[in-house]
Amino acid sequence: MRAVVMRKQQLVVDEIPDPEPLEGEVLVRTLACGICGSDLHTLQHADKLVEAARDTGAPFHLDLERDVVMGHEFCCEVLDYGPRTTATVPRGQRVVSMPLVFRGGGIQGVGYSNEVPGGYGEYMVLSAALLLPVPNGLATEHAALTEPMAVGVHAVAKAHLQAWDCPLVIGCGPVGLAVVAALKLKGVEPIIAADYSPTRRALAEKMGAHVVVDPHEQSPFAVYRERAGGRPAVIFECVGVPGILQDIFRHAPHGARVIVAGVCMEMDRIAPIYGINKELSLQFVLGYTPEEFAQTLRHIAEGEIDVAPLVTGRVGLDEVPAAFHDLAQPERHAKIIVTPHGG
Amino acid sequence: MRAVVMRKQQLVVDEIPDPEPLEGEVLVRTLACGICGSDLHTLQHADKLVEAARDTGAPFHLDLERDVVMGHEFCCEVLDYGPRTTATVPRGQRVVSMPLVFRGGGIQGVGYSNEVPGGYGEYMVLSAALLLPVPNGLATEHAALTEPMAVGVHAVAKAHLQAWDCPLVIGCGPVGLAVVAALKLKGVEPIIAADYSPTRRALAEKMGAHVVVDPHEQSPFAVYRERAGGRPAVIFECVGVPGILQDIFRHAPHGARVIVAGVCMEMDRIAPIYGINKELSLQFVLGYTPEEFAQTLRHIAEGEIDVAPLVTGRVGLDEVPAAFHDLAQPERHAKIIVTPHGG
Repeated sequence: MRAVVMRKQQLVVDEIPDPEPLEGEVLVRTLACGICGSDLHTLQHADKLVEAARDTGAPFHLDLERDVVMGHEFCCEVLDYGPRTTATVPRGQRVVSMPLVFRGGGIQGVGYSNEVPGGYGEYMVLSAALLLPVPNGLATEHAALTEPMAVGVHAVAKAHLQAWDCPLVIGCGPVGLAVVAALKLKGVEPIIAADYSPTRRALAEKMGAHVVVDPHEQSPFAVYRERAGGRPAVIFECVGVPGILQDIFRHAPHGARVIVAGVCMEMDRIAPIYGINKELSLQFVLGYTPEEFAQTLRHIAEGEIDVAPLVTGRVGLDEVPAAFHDLAQPERHAKIIVTPHGG
Repeated sequence: MRAVVMRKQQLVVDEIPDPEPLEGEVLVRTLACGICGSDLHTLQHADKLVEAARDTGAPFHLDLERDVVMGHEFCCEVLDYGPRTTATVPRGQRVVSMPLVFRGGGIQGVGYSNEVPGGYGEYMVLSAALLLPVPNGLATEHAALTEPMAVGVHAVAKAHLQAWDCPLVIGCGPVGLAVVAALKLKGVEPIIAADYSPTRRALAEKMGAHVVVDPHEQSPFAVYRERAGGRPAVIFECVGVPGILQDIFRHAPHGARVIVAGVCMEMDRIAPIYGINKELSLQFVLGYTPEEFAQTLRHIAEGEIDVAPLVTGRVGLDEVPAAFHDLAQPERHAKIIVTPHGG
């Protein structure tokens, strides 16, 4: 099959063997796959990701000397079944899945694996046990965004919001926008969100932000203090670059809870004394539970999360390397959808 | 009066004016004052403390060009009252107090103030509203340790321990020992504590640790995994030096909650990706509530916290500069008590 391959930290479009479904797995045709900011990070910092994964027991056993097909935000069509796989989902059914495959007594992270390809290829294998049928009437490219939206649902769940808590979302890339959408689902008001990009601020408003801030113009923390008064602060860090944590340490109100949803793969510097003086708390978050993933698909299908504004581009496999480049420019794109078989 | 003065980041013993109690304040004779690890840090890093305090709105308005008398772990005797001060505590009564004085509509941190002297001087002024009488039969030097023990009580309270949580205390200096004592009060088992110093490990056992670990011999995290099994991990960081947070990030179990009670005044480096992959949480803690402070005095008075093993030395004012030096050597000392008027 044709696929976009990460090879020596470069993206190349190449012909590679079709994946073969083993026991408990299904073969699927990739209909749509979102490009994730993490994939851009991974391309840059794959070595650090591998080292951290090894040290922390995360289920990513990447050998960077071997090919990797990234892509973990996908919607697919069931084509065939592996041996002794119970067919609960019929051939031809559109499905989404958490990007995990249970194989050989372990877990493969789809999109971060040498064993199973991710969604930047024409075909994939998935674990039958994890398939979720996509309801009729839900657009394929919107179903593919279940995964990034579930990240926001999970981050907000881990914040354990109390009635009077007031959120501040720092960064309105895909993660920040998913957090805004999940906060809107909870009925929280006001949702205050900050980003340097006017395009992203406009998207944040579409996703449910009541107040948007351009940090070039005003400090998000000053606006926050004005709008939130003395309400307990819950700050969602959705930027994931070195320095952002210390910026939050300096400016967060006393007692703030910080939910770290941005994925910073580099070393970072903080001054603990700021956290101490303010008795801050930090909750790092990753992924979602199976329940949160399934709920997110339902929220999208029922129109409670409207992902349509997020899709700003569609590309075939040949255009993926250029799309990675385009995504670095926040004015042009939020989410680009890859359609390996054409749109 | 005679006092140990911090002057240009040096300690000197000098004659300074007696403090005078203003409205709402009492004049007290300092009977005993513990030397705190924070004071050693402050002597080294006073400029960083001042900067962080200014940036975070902490109630320490230090001018390092002017004299500061440190010392915030004190037991005193009431001598006299300021104007229009309601006398709820009789002259001659021994008292302790949170190290705060309400003055001029603001707060002075006793021991971190240019306006009011701390306990390394013969006399102090305190806010009458904050005085807690020391019960008869409680030794003065043990009452003086209410403050550092309250730090442990607060840290454990902020951990919101659940029935099945299993604690690991990293560092058995005064903060770590106070945490161990507070965990023992809660009836938590096992309490696992780690320190390089045999003296400190022996003290940890006296304060209630069930398992002590020498990190030279074994990884505290390996011992922890063995003893705690899969119980939820609550790690108390009681070291407060650069690097310790990243060490915890690398070795903590998935989902661990880290209570940061060590006071690191320098910049520190962390790799957020470790926190993310493990979904760690960090709660920075500082001080205690008035209720926790009063409860701690009662726990000490009733023998529920036995502070006697902690007192390893007693010095007069002239010996304080040398005592600061001695405290840097964990084999010799845990807590040194200053008695400004002699023992």
